[in-house]
Amino acid sequence: MTVAPRFDQAVLAAVTEGLPADLLITDPPGLEPYSRDWSGDHYGTPLAVARPRSPAELATLMARCSALRLPVVPQGGLTGLVGAAVAEPGRELVISLERMAAVRSVDPVGFAMVVEAGCVLEVAKRAAADADCLLPITFGAQGSCRIGGNVATNAGGFNVLRYGMTRDLVLGLEVVLADGRVWNGLRTLRKDNRGYDLKQLFIGAEGTLGIVTAAALKLFPKPTKVEVALVGLNSVADVMSFFAHARRACGDLLSAFELILRPGLKVALDPPASLPDPLGAPYPAYVLMELASSGPVDLRGMLEDCLAGSDLVADGTIAASHAQAERLWLYREMMVEHQGHGGRYYRTDVSVPISRIASFLTEALAGLEMALPEAKPVAYGHVGDGNIHLNVVPPPGLSPEAVSVLFQRAEDVIFTILDRMDGSISAEHGIGRLKRHAFLDRIDPVSLAIAESVKQALDPLRILSRGRILNPTTTDDDGSGGTVSDPWH
Amino acid sequence: MTVAPRFDQAVLAAVTEGLPADLLITDPPGLEPYSRDWSGDHYGTPLAVARPRSPAELATLMARCSALRLPVVPQGGLTGLVGAAVAEPGRELVISLERMAAVRSVDPVGFAMVVEAGCVLEVAKRAAADADCLLPITFGAQGSCRIGGNVATNAGGFNVLRYGMTRDLVLGLEVVLADGRVWNGLRTLRKDNRGYDLKQLFIGAEGTLGIVTAAALKLFPKPTKVEVALVGLNSVADVMSFFAHARRACGDLLSAFELILRPGLKVALDPPASLPDPLGAPYPAYVLMELASSGPVDLRGMLEDCLAGSDLVADGTIAASHAQAERLWLYREMMVEHQGHGGRYYRTDVSVPISRIASFLTEALAGLEMALPEAKPVAYGHVGDGNIHLNVVPPPGLSPEAVSVLFQRAEDVIFTILDRMDGSISAEHGIGRLKRHAFLDRIDPVSLAIAESVKQALDPLRILSRGRILNPTTTDDDGSGGTVSDPWH
Repeated sequence: MTVAPRFDQAVLAAVTEGLPADLLITDPPGLEPYSRDWSGDHYGTPLAVARPRSPAELATLMARCSALRLPVVPQGGLTGLVGAAVAEPGRELVISLERMAAVRSVDPVGFAMVVEAGCVLEVAKRAAADADCLLPITFGAQGSCRIGGNVATNAGGFNVLRYGMTRDLVLGLEVVLADGRVWNGLRTLRKDNRGYDLKQLFIGAEGTLGIVTAAALKLFPKPTKVEVALVGLNSVADVMSFFAHARRACGDLLSAFELILRPGLKVALDPPASLPDPLGAPYPAYVLMELASSGPVDLRGMLEDCLAGSDLVADGTIAASHAQAERLWLYREMMVEHQGHGGRYYRTDVSVPISRIASFLTEALAGLEMALPEAKPVAYGHVGDGNIHLNVVPPPGLSPEAVSVLFQRAEDVIFTILDRMDGSISAEHGIGRLKRHAFLDRIDPVSLAIAESVKQALDPLRILSRGRILNPTTTDDDGSGGTVSDPWH
Repeated sequence: MTVAPRFDQAVLAAVTEGLPADLLITDPPGLEPYSRDWSGDHYGTPLAVARPRSPAELATLMARCSALRLPVVPQGGLTGLVGAAVAEPGRELVISLERMAAVRSVDPVGFAMVVEAGCVLEVAKRAAADADCLLPITFGAQGSCRIGGNVATNAGGFNVLRYGMTRDLVLGLEVVLADGRVWNGLRTLRKDNRGYDLKQLFIGAEGTLGIVTAAALKLFPKPTKVEVALVGLNSVADVMSFFAHARRACGDLLSAFELILRPGLKVALDPPASLPDPLGAPYPAYVLMELASSGPVDLRGMLEDCLAGSDLVADGTIAASHAQAERLWLYREMMVEHQGHGGRYYRTDVSVPISRIASFLTEALAGLEMALPEAKPVAYGHVGDGNIHLNVVPPPGLSPEAVSVLFQRAEDVIFTILDRMDGSISAEHGIGRLKRHAFLDRIDPVSLAIAESVKQALDPLRILSRGRILNPTTTDDDGSGGTVSDPWH
């Protein structure tokens, strides 16, 4: 494994020779939009940005990058928030997929679509909806994130409970490999057991094993009815018991079941969002639940029966219209948007077995209160999937260094409890560079050996997304520049 | 890659030294039940059968097999039907998982269970049902197949449309690797994006990359209502249009949608099954459809509306009771059981994009009629998944050689059409040894290179399930004994 040499215009000229002149962006203002992620927390100016128009163009580029050992990092919508797609400053060539953004096909009989990696999720969702189908990947960043990034990070979101993670929705992939070979696995077959399912290698690999250029995705009948309720409960334990009841009472038509603790809801009630308190009195915990169906189901009646059939529901409101449903979802959106008051805050994206959610939250919130009484925890999550976002907002006025110290202490508290409960430090967002050390500190030697052997099989020169998930080299612990000394900056 | 040496008692004594005396079966009558698959078409007496009681015992065994280059083949219920688990005669040590058969846990709140590889699927399903949950893997062999085999072959079945393949249901795995290392990935987390999803490597790999010893599986609310109908239609094209209607009309609660062509139904009407013709008149095509729900859904009304809302339904019957529903399913079961009249018949397990099913069947049946007018095709399948079983029954009285010739000609006809339609030669059952040549004849060089590199990463000595999926060695085309000269025997 070689240490990356200093690259210059001559190297960039060599890798792009004969390719269209506008393939590369190299001027500093032009690089700016490709340097900062959605949160603003991760920043790195790339060596240059390449924007290929086709897999063939990308293949040529990768063959040359491989020959010259030029490290590259594929980039989608920059919404992953773990530093996976932001360049190592000045050393990596960013491969933007934004020019490969077409919806190639939508098949409403076969319930499948083929979309290029650069297609914005919302655009793909709209194309599916236009054909009376549902592409169920749904989350806050859907107007910015791109399909390639969704696949590379195995994106989750609100509807995993009903429809699964992105992995469960991928029928086929087209991938350009590190050495420029193109792997064509772009099939819409729903069942295909011909040998190893190679597409699985690239899903969730965060660009470290290949660059996804297109995906075939499963679609579902578009729900014709959606019912939404916001419910108040007295504890997280009650929320979990209510979930067990609701999943059965709602005939497997539950499409979202979101937990919000009162301090999170308060974010949406306080300025600048200033939404009205949604129920008659405050409750320690809230559930935002959604049912969806496309057939002749009395979905409203089902939801009413579900709420009436549980003693644990202290109060609740059912949206009477689409507009009201959107207003209920607004609590969730405003909470996420304003939780940091515009400043940096510590984010987690953890999961535990569903039966441990209540004890995890109880212990973690108590631990944070003890260790960081001045900070404000904001907890919410997709509890039907065991996925909690337990974030910590620092008090105002702290220095950047003090904020970093606080983040580290918050992480120590939360991850210690998580480790004890066999939880995951990354349920949805992946490892990237931000969580690499925490990940590698915890991985068992057999898992690491297998992961390294897979990396070796697909990117032996380690030019793809170096330092994401795994160390940049197999021999050094910290490698040649992939290290972020302050993982919180 | 070495050619396997001749193994003898001394080798077996070396690999089992210090392990329980009853670990091995070596006497010929004792080996018999481990030598023949469910169909009777595949037969191979193993060198011996090892029946470890724990992953630790298996790990010790594998470390020694690895050191001695002793080829092994893991074995479940022997229902895969492609020769994956039947030994290469006299050369392979069969690893039977039957002594690791416990249901370790069932979690009705977290909707997850942990089951050992040797557990018979039906036993696991019953344990889930006892906790008011559904383990949705469902197919004819469920009373014989084992969970480890379901995972290793990524088993499909009737309910894939609603619940996905086995891959979609696996939350975690415990695997013993070729060299005896134990990979512990036995988690019940529903969302976990910590680096590469290593369990995907072992699912559907047919035992060639590791030996699954336990699996954590997703469960669903147990349906409290099931509705079944048998419907007659005038063509496969009508069936496909009806499917597009039904999937939407049934609010995503459709759990099975099985196509049966008249000649298949006739098998169940003829002796020995001798079931009555189910509808008033014969129809070219039938659909056996099932809806399932656990909540307050008027499932009967939904099914009635669905049938009434389509002009394509020529006739149909809705089961009025659980017993009647079972009688409708009996047509499907009797057809499968008696299609070969007790003799050998050519089986396919193919898939095409859903929108191509009608043209595939039209062309393939016409092609078979032309090439093999004396043979009887029997076609049925899980059309909601694009999966067709198009089988060919030879006329009575043919010599075994003539039967093999007929099988080869049937395959040529079917696979040629399939190749043109971007179909899969194995939708459900995998490749094993039976379909290895057909698979390798069709695989593109990039896919083969990736598959070989994955095999190299996990089983560099190629002692695991040699000659299944891939050739037994990377250098020889036919290798050292893994070849089946008559793939139909």
